Amino acid sequence: MPKEPISDVSRIFGERVRERRTELALSQERLAEGTSLHWSVIGRIERGQSNLTLANIVKLSEALEIDPGKLVAGLRSGD
Amino acid sequence: MPKEPISDVSRIFGERVRERRTELALSQERLAEGTSLHWSVIGRIERGQSNLTLANIVKLSEALEIDPGKLVAGLRSGD
Repeated sequence: MPKEPISDVSRIFGERVRERRTELALSQERLAEGTSLHWSVIGRIERGQSNLTLANIVKLSEALEIDPGKLVAGLRSGD
Repeated sequence: MPKEPISDVSRIFGERVRERRTELALSQERLAEGTSLHWSVIGRIERGQSNLTLANIVKLSEALEIDPGKLVAGLRSGD
């Protein structure tokens, strides 16, 4: 049974990362290379099982060629 | 000697938090109450000495009545 997302905030963030990654036709491995994060961490992030730090949000946004503000816009902890 | 910010990303983020907090005329203690973070953590965040998690960024943005996207917009790790 796949593990549940740790929160709706992490779930939505992960969905946005996956959406942008697939838009860029990048594999998780290729995205990982651009972030110094391990590719398995990318998988956990996309499944909403990771509570990233600010530094890693910014690194990820750069590799995804998107403003970090767009990855977290509108997120609410009640989400 | 006051400790240096841990990164420019954390420094800029902290400056934005302080700017918004003072706009709302909130003390660090009052802001802390709205976030379940200790007031000393708010001080460290504002001095750029904290690498917040996504969950705490969202909690802080709610207490500051600002979209989390605005707190991280345009941040670059080379910053």
